[in-house]
Amino acid sequence: AVRLRVREALGAREPADAVRVQGWVRSVRSQKEVLFLHINDGSSLESLQVVANPSLEKKDLTFGSAVEVQGKLVKSPHRMQNMELQAETIRVVGPCDIWSFPLKMKERHPLEYVRQFPHLRCRNNTLGALLRIRSEATAGIHSFFQDNGYVHIHTPIITSNDCEGAGELFQIEVSWAKESAQKTHFFNVPAFLTVSGQLHLEVMAGAFTHVFTFGPTFRAENSQSRRHLAEFYMVEAELSFTESLQDIMQVMEDLFKTVTSTVLSKCPHDVELFHKYIAPAQKSDITQKLFSSSCRISYGEAMEILKQAAQTFTFKPEWGCDLQTEHEKYLVKHCGEVPVFVVNYPYDLKPFYMRDNEDGPQHTVAAVDLLVPGVGELCGGSLREERLPFLESRLQRLGLTDAYQWYLDLRKFGSVPHGGFGMGFERYLQYILGVDNIKDVIPFPRFSHSCLL
Amino acid sequence: AVRLRVREALGAREPADAVRVQGWVRSVRSQKEVLFLHINDGSSLESLQVVANPSLEKKDLTFGSAVEVQGKLVKSPHRMQNMELQAETIRVVGPCDIWSFPLKMKERHPLEYVRQFPHLRCRNNTLGALLRIRSEATAGIHSFFQDNGYVHIHTPIITSNDCEGAGELFQIEVSWAKESAQKTHFFNVPAFLTVSGQLHLEVMAGAFTHVFTFGPTFRAENSQSRRHLAEFYMVEAELSFTESLQDIMQVMEDLFKTVTSTVLSKCPHDVELFHKYIAPAQKSDITQKLFSSSCRISYGEAMEILKQAAQTFTFKPEWGCDLQTEHEKYLVKHCGEVPVFVVNYPYDLKPFYMRDNEDGPQHTVAAVDLLVPGVGELCGGSLREERLPFLESRLQRLGLTDAYQWYLDLRKFGSVPHGGFGMGFERYLQYILGVDNIKDVIPFPRFSHSCLL
Repeated sequence: AVRLRVREALGAREPADAVRVQGWVRSVRSQKEVLFLHINDGSSLESLQVVANPSLEKKDLTFGSAVEVQGKLVKSPHRMQNMELQAETIRVVGPCDIWSFPLKMKERHPLEYVRQFPHLRCRNNTLGALLRIRSEATAGIHSFFQDNGYVHIHTPIITSNDCEGAGELFQIEVSWAKESAQKTHFFNVPAFLTVSGQLHLEVMAGAFTHVFTFGPTFRAENSQSRRHLAEFYMVEAELSFTESLQDIMQVMEDLFKTVTSTVLSKCPHDVELFHKYIAPAQKSDITQKLFSSSCRISYGEAMEILKQAAQTFTFKPEWGCDLQTEHEKYLVKHCGEVPVFVVNYPYDLKPFYMRDNEDGPQHTVAAVDLLVPGVGELCGGSLREERLPFLESRLQRLGLTDAYQWYLDLRKFGSVPHGGFGMGFERYLQYILGVDNIKDVIPFPRFSHSCLL
Repeated sequence: AVRLRVREALGAREPADAVRVQGWVRSVRSQKEVLFLHINDGSSLESLQVVANPSLEKKDLTFGSAVEVQGKLVKSPHRMQNMELQAETIRVVGPCDIWSFPLKMKERHPLEYVRQFPHLRCRNNTLGALLRIRSEATAGIHSFFQDNGYVHIHTPIITSNDCEGAGELFQIEVSWAKESAQKTHFFNVPAFLTVSGQLHLEVMAGAFTHVFTFGPTFRAENSQSRRHLAEFYMVEAELSFTESLQDIMQVMEDLFKTVTSTVLSKCPHDVELFHKYIAPAQKSDITQKLFSSSCRISYGEAMEILKQAAQTFTFKPEWGCDLQTEHEKYLVKHCGEVPVFVVNYPYDLKPFYMRDNEDGPQHTVAAVDLLVPGVGELCGGSLREERLPFLESRLQRLGLTDAYQWYLDLRKFGSVPHGGFGMGFERYLQYILGVDNIKDVIPFPRFSHSCLL
């Protein structure tokens, strides 16, 4: 018998005689004349209908059990599906203790409920769809950059750069160090989990001009927010010989459009599930999510808009202050619920590596944040300060000259105008699928007070 | 002027009038009548030759400086290259302080030398080639699995599973925890950096049947070996409905062949550099590296071979002992310097999740290691114990029942025979390129006493 995955069986053009399908039972319906099963193996959202003689029924053949079915693949008489399997033999490979199994047949469990079972929730339709979409989006991100001549770089997870992340860093110790009388560092220096691959990407942009990384980043934020995780994934790109923020914004937009198109074409049913059941209001927004329109304002303009708002904010909008969630929401609404690029932030608000716009004494830097409806900040980027004297004096004022000698070196040896950005991968998934809580778009969420498995 | 990358300019079919190329100067040769430059932008190993009037020479136009050249792309009269650029203007974008720049024009710096400059070594030919190959291999790995219906899973980096890695774990603390009087854990429980994504992949194999992960893993080994890093990358795959080690070995072999073919076809010049200058003896081995032949022996047979060896080993070969580097070397040599699969290891030598072969009371498990010439262990895999009673009694004997209740759950709810393997990505690169030291195949190596940048 030819072994077929459920997706292959469902998509088959021709009937076939000796077929073998393996998977897990999603439903059992026993009638007098006929036994119906639905088998799912995770290759698609849709399950394969199995039609069998009731004599093939057995005690262990329950919801959740693993089975192997052999038989004939035939055209289905039902208009909703193409093919079905007429069973000749059904073997229960692994039974399922349905009384203690937390998932129940044909129930649409809420996301909060399945979140309690990180080792089982992937067997749920919604999480299954999510993880297939996540996988296709991952492949799409790699393809987008590879097709555009970017070199992929594995930027390090453990780093000795400790200045940028301030108090939100995870520090690394060897587990045996505590017991030893003498507490030495494994790496000789304090070591931390990365908060961004940017500085390491800048190293590489000095050799390859176009580089990207896509990996885990960490923030020790004591937050239970629906938008924050302690461990999350970031796509970051860096481009040399770039003198305009517009170039950076264009790459953000192209990345977004290309990956979203890939996902929509590869997983239409999985995406539909989210637009139908998880965020019904989102479906009409799909054109906006493809950036059919977007808006671009400066930080200064944003402040004016906020000051003139009829609404009262908890944090009063004032030049020099960070945009709070309430501000982001208002700006996106003000622009008509489309993606909003905010550019040219105050110099003192942003990290040392951002490029001085020279529109006044240390007035603004060439930074850009992309805000999107429902999620807030999706991307952040900037031109980097490539001019040695500007960078030297800024690092000196911050007392960081010694720590960043290697970074200054990049400006001494063939420095070029360059810039880049990062996109939060989980927030991207939240946005295109309309998922409210970030914990539901990552296989194993880590956040304060929780590290299951 | 049309902006072209060096790779595009070199590969152009037709001459072009107004062309702009940006990159870094790899050589300057000033003659009475003509000025020759070589420009590299990391898009290829080969640089583009620029021919200019000596009047265009300027003080800053040195090795290592960043330039933008405009002119005509014409057929080169030299038979070694296709196209060259006749400069009309040359602009030095960023000068290079050649006196303090550690790389020198036209010098083939030893790998040990450039390793001292992690922020600059990517501008060296060898590291440039390596990182392009690494990028293509990364893409090739994603494609291989995606094309074969595997779902990509981001297995977690931070985990609360602490049993498997024993003493070699990195533990995570929040940097502010030490100052606080009350030392609480950020995650409420002790948390560690992952040593393998396998157990989390097994969760997912229970929903998607074919899954893979490709990410960083960590080992706090106090080792300065040429084969070990504290942070390295691992490709791991897990397959459900698999009852034979042969299936696992087949995937290892297919993965290896497909990715290596991709690399050879995408980066022929980069690979050639390694086979020419780094490991000249390797070139003749390339057919072996494509698995034209391999060898399969059991652990028991391996022990017999070692016991009968004329050679004296530092570690005496004895049933139940781990294979040491000296043993691995001997076995590979004995089999004719081809990849060697060693299968069916002693039960007590391997972790709790490996499947009992039932060839005696707890005698051997269905494990496989793949040893390759020059590198040793490249892959390790096994069938997993899917039978609840076997797993329960083993965990009980180890006192791990409580910690692995979730893992036992996977056997209670639709358990299926399954197995998988992991491949060390850096060792893979070492092997196909013949690179002696693992520190030279990763952008930013981390090992005991060293975490630069």
